[in-house]
Amino acid sequence: MTKAFRSSIALQTAFAISTFLNASAQTPAQTPSLASRMAVPQPSPADEHNFPPLLLQQLSAIKATALNDDYAYRQVAHLTENIGPRPSGSAQARAAAEYVAGELRQLGLEVRLQPVTVPHWVRGVETAALVEYPGMVSGTTQKIVLTALGGSSSTPTEGLTADVVTVSTFEELQALGRDKVAGKIVLFNEIFDQQKAAGGLGFAAYGEAVRYRGAGPKAAADLGAAAALVRSVGNADYRLPHTGFSFPAAIPAGAVTAEDADLIVHLASQGKIRMHLTLTPQKLPDETGYNVIADLKGSEHPEEIVVVSGHLDSWDLGTGAIDDGAGVVIAMETAEILQRLHLRPARTLRVIAWMDEETGGAGSRAYSSEYFNNFIHHIAAIESDSGAAHPLGFEVKAAPVAINALHPVQTVLLSTGASVLQPTADAPGADIAAMADAGVPAFGVMQDGRTYFNYHHTAADTLDKIVPTELRENAAAMAVLAYALANMKDPLPR
Amino acid sequence: MTKAFRSSIALQTAFAISTFLNASAQTPAQTPSLASRMAVPQPSPADEHNFPPLLLQQLSAIKATALNDDYAYRQVAHLTENIGPRPSGSAQARAAAEYVAGELRQLGLEVRLQPVTVPHWVRGVETAALVEYPGMVSGTTQKIVLTALGGSSSTPTEGLTADVVTVSTFEELQALGRDKVAGKIVLFNEIFDQQKAAGGLGFAAYGEAVRYRGAGPKAAADLGAAAALVRSVGNADYRLPHTGFSFPAAIPAGAVTAEDADLIVHLASQGKIRMHLTLTPQKLPDETGYNVIADLKGSEHPEEIVVVSGHLDSWDLGTGAIDDGAGVVIAMETAEILQRLHLRPARTLRVIAWMDEETGGAGSRAYSSEYFNNFIHHIAAIESDSGAAHPLGFEVKAAPVAINALHPVQTVLLSTGASVLQPTADAPGADIAAMADAGVPAFGVMQDGRTYFNYHHTAADTLDKIVPTELRENAAAMAVLAYALANMKDPLPR
Repeated sequence: MTKAFRSSIALQTAFAISTFLNASAQTPAQTPSLASRMAVPQPSPADEHNFPPLLLQQLSAIKATALNDDYAYRQVAHLTENIGPRPSGSAQARAAAEYVAGELRQLGLEVRLQPVTVPHWVRGVETAALVEYPGMVSGTTQKIVLTALGGSSSTPTEGLTADVVTVSTFEELQALGRDKVAGKIVLFNEIFDQQKAAGGLGFAAYGEAVRYRGAGPKAAADLGAAAALVRSVGNADYRLPHTGFSFPAAIPAGAVTAEDADLIVHLASQGKIRMHLTLTPQKLPDETGYNVIADLKGSEHPEEIVVVSGHLDSWDLGTGAIDDGAGVVIAMETAEILQRLHLRPARTLRVIAWMDEETGGAGSRAYSSEYFNNFIHHIAAIESDSGAAHPLGFEVKAAPVAINALHPVQTVLLSTGASVLQPTADAPGADIAAMADAGVPAFGVMQDGRTYFNYHHTAADTLDKIVPTELRENAAAMAVLAYALANMKDPLPR
Repeated sequence: MTKAFRSSIALQTAFAISTFLNASAQTPAQTPSLASRMAVPQPSPADEHNFPPLLLQQLSAIKATALNDDYAYRQVAHLTENIGPRPSGSAQARAAAEYVAGELRQLGLEVRLQPVTVPHWVRGVETAALVEYPGMVSGTTQKIVLTALGGSSSTPTEGLTADVVTVSTFEELQALGRDKVAGKIVLFNEIFDQQKAAGGLGFAAYGEAVRYRGAGPKAAADLGAAAALVRSVGNADYRLPHTGFSFPAAIPAGAVTAEDADLIVHLASQGKIRMHLTLTPQKLPDETGYNVIADLKGSEHPEEIVVVSGHLDSWDLGTGAIDDGAGVVIAMETAEILQRLHLRPARTLRVIAWMDEETGGAGSRAYSSEYFNNFIHHIAAIESDSGAAHPLGFEVKAAPVAINALHPVQTVLLSTGASVLQPTADAPGADIAAMADAGVPAFGVMQDGRTYFNYHHTAADTLDKIVPTELRENAAAMAVLAYALANMKDPLPR
């Protein structure tokens, strides 16, 4: 997932207690206390109206089935190992859409491949070395491990050589000014806050650091820089570069590992350093990709839609297991479980595998532009795009009355540990943001994020990072919430 | 460090309790119980003879100084960041020897650069991809992340393409036989035991898995294989390949990451897979490298020698911080502290920075061949080559009477946590093995090894992996033991 576009940091996890308490203290009348929201209250008459005993039994059966189902894991194994990385515009992304469509047809869903015009950027050579620095042994260089940022321009084929300047903030860059930046390679050394991540606030740490990945290259280009590098936005210390989207700039842009950023900063503090940098990605002509849209028609209100979703495109370095094969397959499993248990949703369950979340959100835009007038009939939208670790519950962008109406779902999910309904001001998923902005109640599966940014956008986002038991818990959470939203008596209030 | 040549697994850590108890149970008369060895006993008359109060005060002063000294850290920063990787035969390895020699001369030591003929193998292109496998999307491949093993032969420049066969053991390879192996790429998928490493038995896990890295390529070549790959010998899950020495074979040999080994094995279980493999390392003509040998002459028994050492060469992927820049710089700091405190050793303190530990041990052989007849005057030898993490004490290959004579050292080191003296049957350091075999009491600093094999022989062996406080603890342990060995009244008994 990428959240570069979010203007502020959402209350991403259940641990964001202090921020939340401040917010709720300001509006005591509208927002129940954190304790009351995280606790599971006694059933009310409204609960009994919306969730009759049969529905509660069905939700329990769905949960039990998901916790013993290996459908999602088998699907994500196929997506990652047999199909592989699925960057926008790639043959694998198209093949994955066709594969997911086929699997959902086999489940009996009405499936549509919605065409989406997507960018097609492909990685090239990516090497770098320090070729002048204090203490350098004559005739040698120091290797710099890096990767191009998505959308990066190319250096000349033979690379470029330039002095390096390091800054920690945009303000420092501006203070240097064009005189000291023009013709140089600029390194933004904003350090990802590992303590925040360890404490469960990985998305807050991400939000702080990712600004430089997103906007740094453009800012450096505006001052005439020859190229821009950022310190990788991520946790862990395995000399692993983290790629990601960057706003288009006319200069090459890459992410060095944390170790290499340290090396550059240390040597730069001792004297002049020069780097030879070769990044030769190519921006190819746009391609047609596909959103997979698959409906399990509602028996009572087929025109009312509950969306379950993840994004099918991935970065190219790894195989897109936790970002976001996992999200796609737990949405698929929601349909699989209902079919296996012969449970017909009252409203239409719509499984969406989004295209192009990582490189601009063309899939989300295409869906919005076609279905905008129908958003009034979109009862709710769920996306999972924060990994595959143990789910703690959901982030929710919806009216407090909607959250209150879901107490029985919290009761059902309590034993899986996924009972938190955490209000958020931002959309809890990039692909459902347009719906959320239009008033559709929006839910994002809220995974334990302590290790997510160790692997996020790296070559190490591979199948083994998914713990099968935890994936089942995620499938249980999504399926239970989705079926509840589809079958509760009254549609979720807005 | 490499311990590929060890015939059995040493009692590498203080946690190897069960093995040790079995051993001691068999020889109750000679070996005190584990509890008594790990505890610090009351002083005996012999202790008071060998360690008069002044010496104990000096040892305490050395410890206190080391725990506040940043000399070793500054030196390892220079070796790793300014000089860089130091593989045998490289310009950096030579520059590092000259640098260390210069620093030790500055400390007032008598320094000699002992020439050593070393191999010179340089890494080339290293790429691989699966080009045929079940479910492959037409026109695509799956990237395989790997690195060449030290000494590997080269593929043709354009690479080679062959079917892949996977085995877990030598027995499975033999069972396949020449018919099924000839012309194929063989993957040895021996899995590093992460539980052993987490439980403090990383060296045991290493010893089990490294057999395939050492001998696998030769075994595969003997059956006509086109190339041999091993699953990386190491912990952690960051798609990081671990290089290392392999016995020469006539075929290209590499290490794939754990993730890529999983991918290959999963896909091979589904059907035929083919790989395109390019590894183009070169074996260049031998070079002259150097052992740095620096003496701080003994005031009373200059002919008696106590060696403190680490190895200066490193692998080329990282910058050789924990393997083994750390070992070299704590040996250097031993001399630095004595000079700073104006403490003259009674016996000669000899600092050695070994060359070529990683690729054959030419430095150790050169030293042995020149000094073998003098080993009788080598009172003891210490090496640190298991990282830079918190020291637990020392592995010791020496007579029980020698270990008993060092109780006062345990007392001094107790507050640093480095008080264990753990008997071992094998040499506790590759470079001091020949001395140990000749009867020289041999000590290896025994670091907490739980994370060592996460980084060992990878690109991530970089300066940040050294925690300055822990490096100081290591320097304290080595300096206290070395000065004790140099100044205890009677030489350590054999």
